[in-house]
Amino acid sequence: MRIAYLGPEGTWSWHAARISYPGSSLVAAKSFTDAIMMVESDQADCCMLPVENSVEGPVPEVLDLLLSTPLLIIAEKMICIKNSLLSYSDHVKRIYSHHQALAQCRGKIRRYFPNAEVVEVNSTASMASSISAGSGDAIIGSRDLASLYGLKVIIENLNDYPVNVTRFITLGNAKIGRIGGNKTTISFLLTSDAPGSLVEALSLFARRGINLSMVISRPEKSDPGSYRFFIDAEGDISDPPMAEAMNGLKRLCRDITIKGSYPKASWKKPDGC
Amino acid sequence: MRIAYLGPEGTWSWHAARISYPGSSLVAAKSFTDAIMMVESDQADCCMLPVENSVEGPVPEVLDLLLSTPLLIIAEKMICIKNSLLSYSDHVKRIYSHHQALAQCRGKIRRYFPNAEVVEVNSTASMASSISAGSGDAIIGSRDLASLYGLKVIIENLNDYPVNVTRFITLGNAKIGRIGGNKTTISFLLTSDAPGSLVEALSLFARRGINLSMVISRPEKSDPGSYRFFIDAEGDISDPPMAEAMNGLKRLCRDITIKGSYPKASWKKPDGC
Repeated sequence: MRIAYLGPEGTWSWHAARISYPGSSLVAAKSFTDAIMMVESDQADCCMLPVENSVEGPVPEVLDLLLSTPLLIIAEKMICIKNSLLSYSDHVKRIYSHHQALAQCRGKIRRYFPNAEVVEVNSTASMASSISAGSGDAIIGSRDLASLYGLKVIIENLNDYPVNVTRFITLGNAKIGRIGGNKTTISFLLTSDAPGSLVEALSLFARRGINLSMVISRPEKSDPGSYRFFIDAEGDISDPPMAEAMNGLKRLCRDITIKGSYPKASWKKPDGC
Repeated sequence: MRIAYLGPEGTWSWHAARISYPGSSLVAAKSFTDAIMMVESDQADCCMLPVENSVEGPVPEVLDLLLSTPLLIIAEKMICIKNSLLSYSDHVKRIYSHHQALAQCRGKIRRYFPNAEVVEVNSTASMASSISAGSGDAIIGSRDLASLYGLKVIIENLNDYPVNVTRFITLGNAKIGRIGGNKTTISFLLTSDAPGSLVEALSLFARRGINLSMVISRPEKSDPGSYRFFIDAEGDISDPPMAEAMNGLKRLCRDITIKGSYPKASWKKPDGC
């Protein structure tokens, strides 16, 4: 299998793909969009993308991209994220990292390095190759980056919260086909904003004993003040109670998108800890 | 009134504070946390913070900060965001901006400047003073930055979506007291993750004809896979139906936080367009 991931080597996406698909060939993409396009154009069989983190919440770009591709979710994996501070020396003046990693370590950065300049970068792994010895530059990322780029691990775990887990999803193309499983991701827009419309939609599932393990709202970009919902319903889309709930949903919602049924992973047992 | 905002001059927060509180003295803060601390320590009477955008969604840091301060929401304002591309010349090699602005303009950047390097920075307004003529550097931000820093407006509106609105909230200290109004922001954690718990909580409001204009989930950081909800309920916390709904909520939820009742603003009539 060829797995596209947000590169270069050393990113959390790379780490996740290596753990999840040992022996597969990993193909580095420049962006989440590129990773999806690689699968759509058959340069890869599937791509693995981060969709939400237990501290920082959803990855908005990835949720939005789910709606712009016919690819389906074929698997999910929870990955333990241990952000390390890496540099050439202990003397840290500037800290570079990606938006999400900085947010996950905000408290400890302030406490340990109150005077350091904190700089957001698009890719921590790309930054790893360009910081120089003696400059006081440091990065926050996976400790894989230390061995890849010859950096020292200054602080092993800079996470503000002891448990920091990212949920990754794998998107597959039509060749892989329907996988099926006990979790289904669905997105919809309510047709009415009357009180209770959302309750009515969600209760279609509750009434049938279907648990919703995730409910995330995203703004409907063309209509400020209105929201689209992403839900994870526990069950396969072909289960009779799920099919009944989906029939009900069609009466209440528009733009219903089923993003695939796949085997559920547990937040409590992340990989790579 | 002294209003704290995320500085320096030229940020969208500055723009919002100037439009909303003409004649007030504006106090620049280094971060959202600092803006809140200024009010808590009486260096300002209130602070104005962005809480959600119609394209990029919630500002996670601000939602999370609402739970760590006793300050209450006393007002909200929808502000039109027109992101401009600013530089010294049309020859653009590098584009700097804040995470949110880059996300709001992602498509047009790719289309118009496929070869430009895109760099995330903590503060676009701070960057405005450090880009230099002839370097090919450009920033994306409010056109106020052009006049403040002597830059040229290269593209007036780089937004991917024609309407781009940010909802700002004003947080006030105890001296200002209870404001009241027709919108109340509430946060809660469900005590059970049984199917239907969320439906049961939300239907307390629906059953009483109380519309929920916003439902946003945030991860509960200490417990991966579980979520806290932020809702905006239409009504004052002292309205009898609202009080009844809140009583019901106490039986289903823990960590209920009422972040204030205040006058509702309209997404359809943003200021500063």
